[in-house]
Amino acid sequence: MNVSIITIGDEILIGQVVDTNSAWIGKKLNESGFTLREILSVSDNLEEIKDAISRSFNKSSVVLVTGGLGPTKDDITKKALCEYFNVESVFHEETFSRITKMFEKRNFPISSSHRDQCYLPANAIVLKNDLGTAPGMWIDHHGKVLVSMPGVPHEMYHLMEERVLPKLKAFYDGPPVKHLTIRTAGVGESVLSDMLSEIESNLPDCVKLAYLPDVGQVRLRFTIKGLPENEMDDILNTLKLSTLQKLGNLVYATEDMALEEFIGKELIKKGLKLVTCESCSGGFLAHKITSIAGSSEYFLGSIVSYANEIKHDVLKVPEEILRQFGAVSQETAEAMIKGGLELTGADIAISITGVAGPGGGTDEKPVGTVWIAVGNAEKIHAKKFYFTKDRIRNIQYSAANGLVMLRKFLLEN
Amino acid sequence: MNVSIITIGDEILIGQVVDTNSAWIGKKLNESGFTLREILSVSDNLEEIKDAISRSFNKSSVVLVTGGLGPTKDDITKKALCEYFNVESVFHEETFSRITKMFEKRNFPISSSHRDQCYLPANAIVLKNDLGTAPGMWIDHHGKVLVSMPGVPHEMYHLMEERVLPKLKAFYDGPPVKHLTIRTAGVGESVLSDMLSEIESNLPDCVKLAYLPDVGQVRLRFTIKGLPENEMDDILNTLKLSTLQKLGNLVYATEDMALEEFIGKELIKKGLKLVTCESCSGGFLAHKITSIAGSSEYFLGSIVSYANEIKHDVLKVPEEILRQFGAVSQETAEAMIKGGLELTGADIAISITGVAGPGGGTDEKPVGTVWIAVGNAEKIHAKKFYFTKDRIRNIQYSAANGLVMLRKFLLEN
Repeated sequence: MNVSIITIGDEILIGQVVDTNSAWIGKKLNESGFTLREILSVSDNLEEIKDAISRSFNKSSVVLVTGGLGPTKDDITKKALCEYFNVESVFHEETFSRITKMFEKRNFPISSSHRDQCYLPANAIVLKNDLGTAPGMWIDHHGKVLVSMPGVPHEMYHLMEERVLPKLKAFYDGPPVKHLTIRTAGVGESVLSDMLSEIESNLPDCVKLAYLPDVGQVRLRFTIKGLPENEMDDILNTLKLSTLQKLGNLVYATEDMALEEFIGKELIKKGLKLVTCESCSGGFLAHKITSIAGSSEYFLGSIVSYANEIKHDVLKVPEEILRQFGAVSQETAEAMIKGGLELTGADIAISITGVAGPGGGTDEKPVGTVWIAVGNAEKIHAKKFYFTKDRIRNIQYSAANGLVMLRKFLLEN
Repeated sequence: MNVSIITIGDEILIGQVVDTNSAWIGKKLNESGFTLREILSVSDNLEEIKDAISRSFNKSSVVLVTGGLGPTKDDITKKALCEYFNVESVFHEETFSRITKMFEKRNFPISSSHRDQCYLPANAIVLKNDLGTAPGMWIDHHGKVLVSMPGVPHEMYHLMEERVLPKLKAFYDGPPVKHLTIRTAGVGESVLSDMLSEIESNLPDCVKLAYLPDVGQVRLRFTIKGLPENEMDDILNTLKLSTLQKLGNLVYATEDMALEEFIGKELIKKGLKLVTCESCSGGFLAHKITSIAGSSEYFLGSIVSYANEIKHDVLKVPEEILRQFGAVSQETAEAMIKGGLELTGADIAISITGVAGPGGGTDEKPVGTVWIAVGNAEKIHAKKFYFTKDRIRNIQYSAANGLVMLRKFLLEN
């Protein structure tokens, strides 16, 4: 089934905001076996929106619209929907009582513009938004569907996952699709592709293999469609086994699971407590770890020792080491591990120290130089990396490679 | 003059890649006074590309196409251009000799697919690409223009800045556009909209006001066009003053700047060093702060005291406080401030402790309950929040509201 996306908002066209929603939706649709045919971004203009809807219906049976549902005057998606479908806008009591409760709980006054948010096109099936005021809307139209969602990413994610995708799957009557996701960490797409070349060239026609790279990780996704369910299961099982055989330890999960979640499960299994000692990653590794629900079971905390004083005063990195080898060195990374274990009583520690940039680089240690160490009371592994010239990417690569090293250490020790 | 963008590539539609090119182009066009009317993303498919070109020419006099020019992919974009304009593809000697030199310099062999890159539509004016093999192409068509560029960001930036924008400016000088961005923190879109209702209903027709909400913050953007430059400046200045008058302290910048960047500048101005003491935000506040280049000038670090032992052992929160009031309490938040200041010698500290969820909630302290405190050696401000049921949201709201409180404290003390 073909799907089109329309994103609405001047902020996208003047480049103030990058449209990350469409990529997120594209990924989700693809995972569910739907084909995203095109993405159209238009301005907050009534005629442009109506024209975009009509063009998208020409291309696809499902049109997903994001944006333009806020309480302010520049948000005109609902008006465009009413005009396009030639329906009145009606007050939706349930939404009003939901918003009212939401505001009472937070002790915020409810404004007239919030009341306006409860007027919805008469032909809309309301999709309850648990995370914000503007509800989503599902509109059936001559055997096709238009779905309107707020552009605020987390509200859109919530509506897509909880309301829209389940309904779309029910709506969809095409051949069944199955996926097998294999999560790998530690090597890039081209290395994996070489290792899997034999499997890939022998794939049956009904199977597609996609490489979905992320920082430090690659997700492999086998998609199969058009056969009876049990035959598809058999083929995917065979593929799972042969992929595991080829990739061995590079695979950390045969389901869709973040590496930090896998590590959490390993720590729980082994009854170990973790501490992170971060410098250039600035807390991002701790953030990744604590994004996983239940991480308090194994994560004690992080010492983000951004300044050398904190490395010395809190993590007890000896002054001689900082002076002789510098903050970005194997010696400092290892001393941070020892200090972190000592300070917190953790069983295992990881440390990251490097030059995130743009400033602070030298000929010897250019921007992007990062030392990462993982260790326990008995042994420490340290490794030097050269990442990029870009600060944000260096922070992301540091945390991602820290997780890869942490997994390796947990498997080996 | 209206411009349309077409981005070509399956990787965009399956969500493997976020289209950041379009936002970059949108910003550049907007700065130059051109109007980006729409962005259309389509797959690597001949018919889809030709259809996209024809639809875009219906909308705009300039069509900018990115992607589909690489050596590994078949030249689907060039093929589509030849078919759409009904022209042959011809070998471009100059491009071949440029690519040959480029490869000789790097000691790379030149492949047949690189030779294929030198076949270009006969009606194309070649735009030399100094940073890659695929040249840009400028095609005049019945008084309109199509420009084709590679999708690799830095090559596209180079072609836009050096070749395309200068030619577009010569081709057409549109009416200038000006923007005024005002950054606010602390209240939502609808409260702001109520406060600005008078200003908004008296806006001249040539001015548009957009509300761009983010977690804990709203960006206001006034856009004006079509008047002489000095008149537009006058109108925007008047709007800036009246907005500041209405919103007062809710405004933290009258330019486009993140709140964490503003806070950094304030800390530098006042010569203060900051430490963060985080529990439920799990390092995310430290991550936001350290995403700003130069933050090492004012940020000492963070103690992410996820476990109570760390609150007690490292931040010296007295055991009686943890026992009597619990980790999520005003008393603990304040003790974390005192401990953080003492431990690190910082001038100012911020602490966050709450129930991120999904577990850990009680009737008295449900998921989403968060205490945030900001303080120095003389005084501490603490505040209780009820955020959401969603873990990731609670982490983001905690950090965002922490920044809002930090700014307030810096202004008042």
